[in-house]
Amino acid sequence: MKLWEEKYQLNEQIESFTVDNDHLLDQKLVKYDCLGSIAHVKMLNKIGVLTKAECGKLIMALYEIITIDGNGAFIIKQEDEDCHTAIEKYVVKKLGKTGKKIHTARSRNDQVLTALRLYYKDEIKTVLKLMDNLVESLLVIKEKYINVEMPGYTHMRKAMPSSVGLWAGAFIESMKDNEILLSNVYKLIDQSPLGTGTGYGLSIQTDRKLTAELLGFKKIQRNPIYVQNSRGKFESDILHGLSQIMFDLNKMSSDIIMFSMTEFGYFELPDEICTGSSIMPQKKNPDVLEIIRAKYHQVVSFEFEVKNIIGNLISGYNRDLQLTKKSVFRGFEITKETISIMILVLDKLKVNESNCKKAMTKELYATEKAYELVKKGVPFREAYKTVSKEY
Amino acid sequence: MKLWEEKYQLNEQIESFTVDNDHLLDQKLVKYDCLGSIAHVKMLNKIGVLTKAECGKLIMALYEIITIDGNGAFIIKQEDEDCHTAIEKYVVKKLGKTGKKIHTARSRNDQVLTALRLYYKDEIKTVLKLMDNLVESLLVIKEKYINVEMPGYTHMRKAMPSSVGLWAGAFIESMKDNEILLSNVYKLIDQSPLGTGTGYGLSIQTDRKLTAELLGFKKIQRNPIYVQNSRGKFESDILHGLSQIMFDLNKMSSDIIMFSMTEFGYFELPDEICTGSSIMPQKKNPDVLEIIRAKYHQVVSFEFEVKNIIGNLISGYNRDLQLTKKSVFRGFEITKETISIMILVLDKLKVNESNCKKAMTKELYATEKAYELVKKGVPFREAYKTVSKEY
Amino acid sequence: MKLWEEKYQLNEQIESFTVDNDHLLDQKLVKYDCLGSIAHVKMLNKIGVLTKAECGKLIMALYEIITIDGNGAFIIKQEDEDCHTAIEKYVVKKLGKTGKKIHTARSRNDQVLTALRLYYKDEIKTVLKLMDNLVESLLVIKEKYINVEMPGYTHMRKAMPSSVGLWAGAFIESMKDNEILLSNVYKLIDQSPLGTGTGYGLSIQTDRKLTAELLGFKKIQRNPIYVQNSRGKFESDILHGLSQIMFDLNKMSSDIIMFSMTEFGYFELPDEICTGSSIMPQKKNPDVLEIIRAKYHQVVSFEFEVKNIIGNLISGYNRDLQLTKKSVFRGFEITKETISIMILVLDKLKVNESNCKKAMTKELYATEKAYELVKKGVPFREAYKTVSKEY
Amino acid sequence: MKLWEEKYQLNEQIESFTVDNDHLLDQKLVKYDCLGSIAHVKMLNKIGVLTKAECGKLIMALYEIITIDGNGAFIIKQEDEDCHTAIEKYVVKKLGKTGKKIHTARSRNDQVLTALRLYYKDEIKTVLKLMDNLVESLLVIKEKYINVEMPGYTHMRKAMPSSVGLWAGAFIESMKDNEILLSNVYKLIDQSPLGTGTGYGLSIQTDRKLTAELLGFKKIQRNPIYVQNSRGKFESDILHGLSQIMFDLNKMSSDIIMFSMTEFGYFELPDEICTGSSIMPQKKNPDVLEIIRAKYHQVVSFEFEVKNIIGNLISGYNRDLQLTKKSVFRGFEITKETISIMILVLDKLKVNESNCKKAMTKELYATEKAYELVKKGVPFREAYKTVSKEY
Repeated sequence: MKLWEEKYQLNEQIESFTVDNDHLLDQKLVKYDCLGSIAHVKMLNKIGVLTKAECGKLIMALYEIITIDGNGAFIIKQEDEDCHTAIEKYVVKKLGKTGKKIHTARSRNDQVLTALRLYYKDEIKTVLKLMDNLVESLLVIKEKYINVEMPGYTHMRKAMPSSVGLWAGAFIESMKDNEILLSNVYKLIDQSPLGTGTGYGLSIQTDRKLTAELLGFKKIQRNPIYVQNSRGKFESDILHGLSQIMFDLNKMSSDIIMFSMTEFGYFELPDEICTGSSIMPQKKNPDVLEIIRAKYHQVVSFEFEVKNIIGNLISGYNRDLQLTKKSVFRGFEITKETISIMILVLDKLKVNESNCKKAMTKELYATEKAYELVKKGVPFREAYKTVSKEY
Repeated sequence: MKLWEEKYQLNEQIESFTVDNDHLLDQKLVKYDCLGSIAHVKMLNKIGVLTKAECGKLIMALYEIITIDGNGAFIIKQEDEDCHTAIEKYVVKKLGKTGKKIHTARSRNDQVLTALRLYYKDEIKTVLKLMDNLVESLLVIKEKYINVEMPGYTHMRKAMPSSVGLWAGAFIESMKDNEILLSNVYKLIDQSPLGTGTGYGLSIQTDRKLTAELLGFKKIQRNPIYVQNSRGKFESDILHGLSQIMFDLNKMSSDIIMFSMTEFGYFELPDEICTGSSIMPQKKNPDVLEIIRAKYHQVVSFEFEVKNIIGNLISGYNRDLQLTKKSVFRGFEITKETISIMILVLDKLKVNESNCKKAMTKELYATEKAYELVKKGVPFREAYKTVSKEY
Repeated sequence: MKLWEEKYQLNEQIESFTVDNDHLLDQKLVKYDCLGSIAHVKMLNKIGVLTKAECGKLIMALYEIITIDGNGAFIIKQEDEDCHTAIEKYVVKKLGKTGKKIHTARSRNDQVLTALRLYYKDEIKTVLKLMDNLVESLLVIKEKYINVEMPGYTHMRKAMPSSVGLWAGAFIESMKDNEILLSNVYKLIDQSPLGTGTGYGLSIQTDRKLTAELLGFKKIQRNPIYVQNSRGKFESDILHGLSQIMFDLNKMSSDIIMFSMTEFGYFELPDEICTGSSIMPQKKNPDVLEIIRAKYHQVVSFEFEVKNIIGNLISGYNRDLQLTKKSVFRGFEITKETISIMILVLDKLKVNESNCKKAMTKELYATEKAYELVKKGVPFREAYKTVSKEY
Repeated sequence: MKLWEEKYQLNEQIESFTVDNDHLLDQKLVKYDCLGSIAHVKMLNKIGVLTKAECGKLIMALYEIITIDGNGAFIIKQEDEDCHTAIEKYVVKKLGKTGKKIHTARSRNDQVLTALRLYYKDEIKTVLKLMDNLVESLLVIKEKYINVEMPGYTHMRKAMPSSVGLWAGAFIESMKDNEILLSNVYKLIDQSPLGTGTGYGLSIQTDRKLTAELLGFKKIQRNPIYVQNSRGKFESDILHGLSQIMFDLNKMSSDIIMFSMTEFGYFELPDEICTGSSIMPQKKNPDVLEIIRAKYHQVVSFEFEVKNIIGNLISGYNRDLQLTKKSVFRGFEITKETISIMILVLDKLKVNESNCKKAMTKELYATEKAYELVKKGVPFREAYKTVSKEY
């Protein structure tokens, strides 16, 4: 039974449709909702809604849930609708009248947002750590092959001398910019929504500063309507940040797939990360990289989905927003998983120095040749024309 | 162990990443892959690769799998990679040497496509049936309220007299066009890919016409490279078709949500399909319609995802294509579920005739007034100006 | 001055913002709007709103506009808002009172849709013709190089023997399916919207069948609300159809760019269609193909723009719909232009038979080798394993 | 004639297709390319490639171009390909041999990026300023109507008491977060690409620090491959930032359109910003707001176009990237224009206090009623149930 249910029974099919798999997604939020509730309870005590004893009991019950959940045993059922209901039901069942006080001065709207933000913050930190690891792996390649020349391509045509080190370095610098981007997203969303109720404030005076501090939020998101309107918007900030990381992995994959073709042979992938064919006995395929490449588009389409779900809607909470949840959750999962797999691939990647060397053909040095004429005093545009006649 | 595995072991993390949840999705394909394999086996018998006895045994084993799967007991494990491997392993285990012959003259590439096409065809038929049901529900509303006037809006402003019947009729006509669209998609994809191998044909002469007929395909998709290149493309045809249906449901929801606001009151939703609030005791919310509205964007983003996954890739199979599978599967699921729910909502929708009547205010008839002047011989543009002075 | 303007003056900035470049886009619609108006005028005569003489004068004036427009001299100004206003103003200026009768029994809403549909139908026919030309060019390649073997790739790895003829054939078959798709779109949108007024019908009895026949529409789009709701929807059908054509061009480009790299050398692009570099004297770049590749994404994003503009809106005309116009116009332009350019590229494409031959290395025949064992009675899966040991 | 042209003539159709309207877009870049070139020239003098006299002459010529361009008279022709060619041709024509030296130690690739970055930085600053103005207008509304109560909505149902001041405040706080976001984008892209050549560095030692300082870049973007790979990526950062601003304008429009319906009447739009109908004499439509609403989706689709154009491509410059240019240019234009228009709308927006008051019906206070019971000691969940029985 849902919190608001008593007078009438929701049609079962409708229930199953509206809740969908939200109760499964919400398993990830149990801990964060308990932490949010603990801060809320402490605040309720401070403003006199709860006695110290009630507050203590509620906190204990909430920590209990965190422990049960840590053991994977706090299961949210579809009829609970979400983790917030399941948790309130647990404390009501355990503490009776005291439990029934926990939802004073908050709405599920600000409660959900609080749990989500705490979860997002943790996930972003995890992604940042993984990015550091990825940079480590790239650094190893960069340093190892700093002097191994390979052709640099423009328009998918041999252009100028490049090197394996330069190639790895490009992704290191790019990943560092991604870290800045994602850290900025972190800072932007690091605002406490708790205490804004359903989107129009509360008629009870609460202490938003206290809960924000207890939960480690950098600041308070003041305007309650903005709190609701930022749902989906913050999610798309996150997904944009993740999609930029995924873009780099997409490009890295595109490079490695091509440069490990026998026609190039600059890179080699060991058998253990290649996949075979059901019919062609000779095949060793870079499936892992093709899938990484495709996953970029998944994250991009999550961002796009969120941006369109939230369009053309009036201010205030609309249930459409619920459907943004899964996209961000999946966005984090895919990004974390894909970075980890890319680290594994990079650690196993081999460079075939001899093939690289063989590929350093004459035309790659045409510009250098023009510059030699420049050094002798020929204006660049004339030097260019002179050399170009050879091709 | 995968079919191609023997010489080396695929790294476990890579395996889990590349297979992902494909083995779960593939549960839906077991039946279709068996049907495809049965046709293939009959053909192998005809061209002399299998004896009649071998053919019989294989067919029996495949029907056995269909039965087991019908009981929900043919479980594909992640290490099987997909249903195709699981099925081949089953027949090899059961029939030994004979089982090892089943993959003659086919590749997993054409096998997968065959199973998918059969599945898509069935799903499209189901969606078409559901659309018929939806039209039935709309017809009931149309006929019941054919004479109930309500305001017609343009620019979200009262424009001209409309009626509840006209409103329902709009979606009936639209849904009929959607049926044409989806039937066209059906016809377009109703081509047999079986017998094109990995995308470059087979060195063994097979009888593609026979398998196509056995499987009920209208025609043969001839060019093997095109067979591969059409993956993702056909999927986006399907998703486009589904998204057009979802668009109508999105609009229907937008209408009902607004017209059931107390500010309008033309429509009423019974309690049993409304959801309450955790904090506001008075609320009865149209969550179900808000979620329908949002689901349109999910299907659109699936289409978009597929269209972008397949971009900028060379001809022939690339593993990226595997990631288009889930999007279509989910697209079908969401569309079927959402149509069903919309039928339920429509069946329970009430029209408040008295509120409709009250809303038929004077300005709705301004154009009619101008036309009355026209009938008296005033040119329309002058009649328009005369009447417009009143507003 | 707009048609509705008299009582108050629209703010200039607002005017410029809302009209935007619509008056420029509308240059393409002048002819179609005149044709629609001619049919409308004939119908008004039939139902007695216009005398035969008035009807004749109006038709003459409308043909006059078509002629002026044919000479590029019927210029729509921003203050006219659109071609429909400009045309009505012209006939009013020329014919006075008679001109003021032309807008009887129609709204700009059904008028715009009529002109757009006529324009779309013509554009689709043009695209279909261009597709035929493209197929011609592909046929030349197919026949000329039917026996020139080249490697077939899966996972961007040499897989099996293919041929240049097979490659060209893939796109021929695909293009033929695109033609079916686009013809289906044509049939779907071939419905007359004229006579539905602003979206809620008209209080004057008109003869919709007559105008539909005069304009060559296959059927009448009955429900006036549906007429409005189909705006954007039909546009996205068109853009989906165009995007599928563009997808094939994207893939063709991806193939040619890669197969004309010196590392492959199967294809060659003559200098006259290649672009140089500002700094590297040796470069000859396939810019034209890179741009074709990118244009696919433009058309896809037009489709998605339209699909999202129209989401979450209630029934009936909303001005948002105006922004779908440019996307379709551009979609047609890009598709027509890109097909033309691809024809040019294909006509100049050279196949380097000697490089193709050199690339036919041993591993491409591994499956064939396994099949030879199969012919000797070895079950395929065992033959596969035997051969795979060599790699 | 293009810079690289001499040996062969590019096919005219191909030329027109590849250049497209780039020469028109490039009018905006003339100034920035000259500034970039001036810095480059100073650096060439410092490293001894140019004498002081040559340097002086070149700088003079470049400032001349800036002046001509300021007067709208520096016209780039399609056969010039882009502004970079047009500018180099101008200085070569004017200064002969000296002019031919200007392209020493740079490629068009890093040159284009330099001009684009300078342009982007200026555009972002302009948008930031406009956002400040928008906030000003919102502040006026907020302060003027701080105490005017209006209903707050959730699920498009009256939920709790809100106020016009609270509504305006939501967008102020949101806009301030948008400013942070956009400033972060500014900081991220504030890196000098000049001196990285075609994407693989230069064989001549240049002074990148000097040019970066002269151009006001905060730092140097070191890795030349990353410089190329960041094209499209930085563009999508910008477009994401802009789309978030547009999202707020979309929501503001959705609110105002609905709240100014006669069914609500909270807001009023004066005639001078409303548009009429061609057929309905009474209509005053909020076209301007509907178009603002739709423009959000345009900017979103630009972002996604860019994100998909750049997917699945290998490292280094690919001509596909050129097509990202227009999207960003249009994104800036639309955003600037739409903010300006929204300011105008807000400045003219009227609040109907009497209608707001009338709308403050009893159910809006149900939660407050529950809280009164809470204050008397009833646990919230019980108070909620008691009050809910009334509805």
